[in-house]
Amino acid sequence: MAEDSVAQDQLKAFIERIERMEEEKAAIAADIREIYAEAKGNGFDTKVLRQVVKIRKQDHNERMEQEAILDLYLSALGMQAAPPEL
Amino acid sequence: MAEDSVAQDQLKAFIERIERMEEEKAAIAADIREIYAEAKGNGFDTKVLRQVVKIRKQDHNERMEQEAILDLYLSALGMQAAPPEL
Amino acid sequence: MAEDSVAQDQLKAFIERIERMEEEKAAIAADIREIYAEAKGNGFDTKVLRQVVKIRKQDHNERMEQEAILDLYLSALGMQAAPPEL
Amino acid sequence: MAEDSVAQDQLKAFIERIERMEEEKAAIAADIREIYAEAKGNGFDTKVLRQVVKIRKQDHNERMEQEAILDLYLSALGMQAAPPEL
Repeated sequence: MAEDSVAQDQLKAFIERIERMEEEKAAIAADIREIYAEAKGNGFDTKVLRQVVKIRKQDHNERMEQEAILDLYLSALGMQAAPPEL
Repeated sequence: MAEDSVAQDQLKAFIERIERMEEEKAAIAADIREIYAEAKGNGFDTKVLRQVVKIRKQDHNERMEQEAILDLYLSALGMQAAPPEL
Repeated sequence: MAEDSVAQDQLKAFIERIERMEEEKAAIAADIREIYAEAKGNGFDTKVLRQVVKIRKQDHNERMEQEAILDLYLSALGMQAAPPEL
Repeated sequence: MAEDSVAQDQLKAFIERIERMEEEKAAIAADIREIYAEAKGNGFDTKVLRQVVKIRKQDHNERMEQEAILDLYLSALGMQAAPPEL
């Protein structure tokens, strides 16, 4: 019997630790959504902001190489790669 | 010019706030994975643990209703619903 | 020059084959949504239908084992496992 | 009793139709993976190929606008936008 109740307590402890962490994670996800909403309110394009965040995680050289290949493929397909210079 | 540099600072601030939060979120996700690994090391079935965490988020009555309908459909299809009593 | 245009044609061919397949896949996904809508119109619970489809992909013994462990964990946490018999 | 067996047959029919469609969808997904593998075997960069397929689904003007804003944000952050001309 004792063994069962030890496992029971252990199970409960694991579940509760996971639930606390999941709550923290959900709260941070909500905070992130708020920052994007704030940025949008200040006139920033949130879809592009997300791209910037994603790009900044990439290795610079790897990105440059991928972008160069992408330009190559797009022009080979007769598609315009980069937008006209501003 | 001043307007540009204000927008530039604002953009930088939003990006850096988002990045800090994303890092915190990633750290918590790593902590959650560690708890599951610890539970596994203690003999718990992590796939079932995840189901328990998911179930505990559900409304009890709604879950009971869904499980009753599921049992109904499975037996209508000639499939065994719940496992035999231990 | 010839080598470029061969690669160009090859690239175009790969892209177009992929696009045709993606279209077919999207059409089937739309058909599946329609069947669920039709089932809903006939009074079936589509959330439970999706569970049934998922369960029928699982190995029977593995499912029974997972359900038995789930019942064990839920009762250890003082939660009701299966709904009352109809 | 008759009503039950009608519902039972209906349920079975819906499930089997969905399963057939899911199988077709899975087969096409496998075909798509094969085409990417074939393209890779011919020296194409599959990660970039996927980007091309995604870009070709986008509205051209919308894409040009997004890319222009992205270049603006990246340079505001002191990051290099497009790769050097080949």
